[in-house]
Amino acid sequence: MQVMKNKKCVVLLSGGLDSTTTLFYVLSQKYNPTCLIFDYGQRHKKEIYSAKKIAQYAKCKYYVVKISFPWKGSSLLDTRLPIPKHTDFKKNTEPYLPSTYVPARNIIFLSYAVSLAEVLSAEYIFYGANQIDFSGYPDCRLEFIKSFQKMANIGTGLKLKNKKIKIVAPLINFSKDQIVTLAVKLKVPLELTWSCYQGKRKPCGVCDACRLRANGFKKAGIKDPLTK
Amino acid sequence: MQVMKNKKCVVLLSGGLDSTTTLFYVLSQKYNPTCLIFDYGQRHKKEIYSAKKIAQYAKCKYYVVKISFPWKGSSLLDTRLPIPKHTDFKKNTEPYLPSTYVPARNIIFLSYAVSLAEVLSAEYIFYGANQIDFSGYPDCRLEFIKSFQKMANIGTGLKLKNKKIKIVAPLINFSKDQIVTLAVKLKVPLELTWSCYQGKRKPCGVCDACRLRANGFKKAGIKDPLTK
Repeated sequence: MQVMKNKKCVVLLSGGLDSTTTLFYVLSQKYNPTCLIFDYGQRHKKEIYSAKKIAQYAKCKYYVVKISFPWKGSSLLDTRLPIPKHTDFKKNTEPYLPSTYVPARNIIFLSYAVSLAEVLSAEYIFYGANQIDFSGYPDCRLEFIKSFQKMANIGTGLKLKNKKIKIVAPLINFSKDQIVTLAVKLKVPLELTWSCYQGKRKPCGVCDACRLRANGFKKAGIKDPLTK
Repeated sequence: MQVMKNKKCVVLLSGGLDSTTTLFYVLSQKYNPTCLIFDYGQRHKKEIYSAKKIAQYAKCKYYVVKISFPWKGSSLLDTRLPIPKHTDFKKNTEPYLPSTYVPARNIIFLSYAVSLAEVLSAEYIFYGANQIDFSGYPDCRLEFIKSFQKMANIGTGLKLKNKKIKIVAPLINFSKDQIVTLAVKLKVPLELTWSCYQGKRKPCGVCDACRLRANGFKKAGIKDPLTK
């Protein structure tokens, strides 16, 4: 991607490995980011704390937006539902939706990012989605991102200001181990990130987020500071 | 439009004339609606009260979703900014953005509607937008709605359930007086609706929402119960 100086952008920051690596990539490319963090009733509230710590560590402006999903509809929101363990991704040849999928959550997050970008007159939104080692979420695929970008440019006032939003997902075709390797290269404070869906004191090690992360670190030949 | 019985749908309900008429249209067509009302920090909080009253009057299920726009960026959110008065819509041959436009607000509302539709397994979202007598908002045009629908069907799990979301805007090409006429025909409780951006005891009569409404009632030859 082209390097541009002092370009304002919005970065969706969950506090996980992917979005944090995206933020550090953005900084390495001399963008001027404002981070967007969501408190949406997630079970792993701990990630909000991580995201804030990371934004502060990186000396970035950030907003924490409090929203809610009164209808829940996901094991990430409804603590009565179990978080799936040991999903065999290889066995799932057909696309499937894990119970941790929050309906339209990332569409809402990106919509907020568009709102902030419009207010800041920023032309880039960075989104840490990746479609390789992921949990099967439909909103992490390139086809969706392109379609969202098109919609955002039709449905906002950006065109009237001669602006155009670009949704950039620099990790979209990265495998988890490539993300870990990039994170190390970019000096991401891995010890501040949080991926586990359970959000307890230590990562559970068995949820999809933990297992994808663990596989990535293992393949990259790097020790995860969280599981040391 | 085809009449379908017992079809579940989500209706975006602001408590204004257009969304209320849309709800009553939906009921007349024997859909099974769940209303979605937003408490988003709007200056005219009174519309939330109206929307709830209307949903109750119509004996419909409803959710009030509390969200926020910490960056404001609109005179509907920032009470330090004045609400424009006496905008001359006819003079504006070029598209323009009034200060009451909330960046990406309707994109966020529709995204929430998609989330709820996915949880309810509803295939229709009704949106009271119209592109004739409107304030120039880019998210009230058919081109946007089509693009949003496409994005929603790519970015959610609906396809995996063999479902498809349809965003229906039955009033999209109605003028305000046609909406008033339809509202009367559908027995909409006009006295419960609220349009004024100021949200005081009585409609201000000079904001864009008041003036579009007043023109509609005048052209339709109907007395607005709110200004009697």
